[in-house]
Amino acid sequence: MEQTLKRSLIRECKSSSKKVVLLQGWVKKIRHLGNLSFLLLRDRTGVIQCVLENDLAGYKVDVESVVEIIGELVETTKTELGVEVLAKEVKVLNTSDRLPFEVNKRKLQVGLDQMLNERVISLRHERVSAIFKVQSTFVRAFSEYLIENDFTQIFTPKIVSQGAEGGANVFKLPYFQKEAYLAQSPQFYKQMMVAGGLERVFEIAPVYRAEYHNSSRHLNEYISLDVEFGFIHDFHEVMKLEADVLRYMFKKVGQKCEKELNLLEATVPIISEIPKITLEEAQEILKTRYRKESPVGDLDTEGEKLLGKYVKEMYDSDFVFITHYPKEARPMYTMPNKDNPAITDSFDLLYKGLEITSGAQRIHEYNMLITSFEEKGLHVEDFESYINTFQYGCPPHGGFAIGLERLVYKFLELSNVREASAFPRDCTRLIP
Amino acid sequence: MEQTLKRSLIRECKSSSKKVVLLQGWVKKIRHLGNLSFLLLRDRTGVIQCVLENDLAGYKVDVESVVEIIGELVETTKTELGVEVLAKEVKVLNTSDRLPFEVNKRKLQVGLDQMLNERVISLRHERVSAIFKVQSTFVRAFSEYLIENDFTQIFTPKIVSQGAEGGANVFKLPYFQKEAYLAQSPQFYKQMMVAGGLERVFEIAPVYRAEYHNSSRHLNEYISLDVEFGFIHDFHEVMKLEADVLRYMFKKVGQKCEKELNLLEATVPIISEIPKITLEEAQEILKTRYRKESPVGDLDTEGEKLLGKYVKEMYDSDFVFITHYPKEARPMYTMPNKDNPAITDSFDLLYKGLEITSGAQRIHEYNMLITSFEEKGLHVEDFESYINTFQYGCPPHGGFAIGLERLVYKFLELSNVREASAFPRDCTRLIP
Repeated sequence: MEQTLKRSLIRECKSSSKKVVLLQGWVKKIRHLGNLSFLLLRDRTGVIQCVLENDLAGYKVDVESVVEIIGELVETTKTELGVEVLAKEVKVLNTSDRLPFEVNKRKLQVGLDQMLNERVISLRHERVSAIFKVQSTFVRAFSEYLIENDFTQIFTPKIVSQGAEGGANVFKLPYFQKEAYLAQSPQFYKQMMVAGGLERVFEIAPVYRAEYHNSSRHLNEYISLDVEFGFIHDFHEVMKLEADVLRYMFKKVGQKCEKELNLLEATVPIISEIPKITLEEAQEILKTRYRKESPVGDLDTEGEKLLGKYVKEMYDSDFVFITHYPKEARPMYTMPNKDNPAITDSFDLLYKGLEITSGAQRIHEYNMLITSFEEKGLHVEDFESYINTFQYGCPPHGGFAIGLERLVYKFLELSNVREASAFPRDCTRLIP
Repeated sequence: MEQTLKRSLIRECKSSSKKVVLLQGWVKKIRHLGNLSFLLLRDRTGVIQCVLENDLAGYKVDVESVVEIIGELVETTKTELGVEVLAKEVKVLNTSDRLPFEVNKRKLQVGLDQMLNERVISLRHERVSAIFKVQSTFVRAFSEYLIENDFTQIFTPKIVSQGAEGGANVFKLPYFQKEAYLAQSPQFYKQMMVAGGLERVFEIAPVYRAEYHNSSRHLNEYISLDVEFGFIHDFHEVMKLEADVLRYMFKKVGQKCEKELNLLEATVPIISEIPKITLEEAQEILKTRYRKESPVGDLDTEGEKLLGKYVKEMYDSDFVFITHYPKEARPMYTMPNKDNPAITDSFDLLYKGLEITSGAQRIHEYNMLITSFEEKGLHVEDFESYINTFQYGCPPHGGFAIGLERLVYKFLELSNVREASAFPRDCTRLIP
């Protein structure tokens, strides 16, 4: 019988025309009641109750063991699913030792460290695995939208000869006879591919920041959703594309992750027009409304949070673009504003009071770029292959990058960005 | 007029209902003939001839400059496209210096080093950018197929505490107070996520091999298309999934990249049944048919090539699975064969005589895994977080990984795998 029956998924059981099914999954729970046992079986698609009677009553199996159950599908009003399985055969495919913590509860009651240390076990909790389903769906939607809009997905090296921002905070490594770094961003390469004639590119890849921050919103390795495109008029076009991409990503997550969003009690935001506030205005709002001083040319964490609150109240928006950062606060490739060259055509996107994106129009003119590098005290010779790009006809262009884990973290209102990373890296965490 | 006209793409011109269009792109060529000039304009979608007459005749602009042209669309029988543009206005958006080599020829006549050193310029050649369009389409199809089949895209760290294969050939780096490595493969993590209940996962990410090979088929950083899935019966199921994935990837490339495949003179292979040959048989065939000896438990480059020829002749197949490698030749997590534990349920996939994949069923039982680690002389304590996974109910599972650049390299019959990497890394190349 086993040979001919093919595995059914639990989500298929409700509407299955089969009478006898073969199910495979993990033992979520087992209860013995007199001459009956109830085994809750979990697979990647759901949970089903299996009734063990007669010889099978009192069946001994450890929670989280992997089992195969052949049984009869029976309609019932007693379970949410509307069907249960009258087990005929139970086979253990692999056993489980006693778990270091329980994963059966509605909410996983375990500290962050243990959740991350024992990732394989915490992932067994439906609310935890749901996070990664949502993440996968975001990524899928991101690339879907861009490919439909004629973008090419690119892959650029993470072992590089210079950090993209030209600053500190880079991981160094010996690379054969040379010294190399881990890329802080694919910035140079995505611009080079735009200039190379692909015009519109995106990349989904890890980036590295050797920062000592040990906050709830920093990771030392994270996934950056990078976009860069040519023939733009101004940086408002870049913000428009980002808003469109996000709108599509949330729409898709709403459609594809209904079950997961219910479990996580998350609702998809409606993104109408995202308000734009210049940095100057933002700092003024913080000062007059919240008596909050900001660092020169920037916002701090507290300021970002207050602005998140402000735009929620004023515009009913979870998002706000902060625009026109001063030159000193932005990298050397950022386009200065035409009317006021002390500020740049740059932006950050805050989501629920947290920066999830930086973006800008970039400098596409060779001489302007050289000047900008020199003003920052950088040695043009160190960036030769990048800078040379702009000698050979680079179109006006811009782009942005979304921090994937931060997006998921804020959307699902997790306690820490590390919860949105399967195996996060921070300055103390290298295992698992 | 410029303000209201929106950019048209060159591919839209043929069937455009517009009389006047605004085009943007690069000057591919300009010729002056008496009181007429002909400017070939290239954007990401194609090339169009623009006719410059009257005041515009003799217009001075350097090749590969970025221009915006407003003009009238006129039908013509003189160009392949069937339309040309009678230019009314030409505006230079950015100039180009004299190129270090010509990109106008039908084939790019430049050595590999210069092609890679001057990537932004070589990418301007349609046959070069077409490579990356094909690559992007492969990746898109890979994830599309897997997501449709209920896989979750995962992202796992590339900074790790051990190399996945536990061997040499890893890049080391200092990670805060610790020593870390760049991941050779997401092997451990993808297995952990299968065991964590996601069951079916894939990852598209760079992997790192610190090898000194400086051959036409090795890269030190490459993109690995990784798949791992649970509840398999045997490793034939793994090979079946890979064949299905590849079939879908080639089908999609055939549909989406018609223009690119024409340019590159590539045809999509028909993948029917992929022949399977055991390593032992393969070695025997090499010996009897080609008088070729193989290294113990493996094939060498020459042997792979000959087998590629053999299956092409015998089965009219570009692909062949080589199966059942001996234990010594495969990593410690590989499932031994039930009937002959000296060999493993593992395979390589050769494509046109080059290995593009390794795959296998993996060990899912804790005690068997411990034994296997110990037999390889590995210290179980060094792999604790991975090995512990198997204490808590891991289903039977297997997977494979496709080297993206190798797939593209062989499909397009490029001269070197480096041509399939925008910015390749080898033991001497770190720039650009």
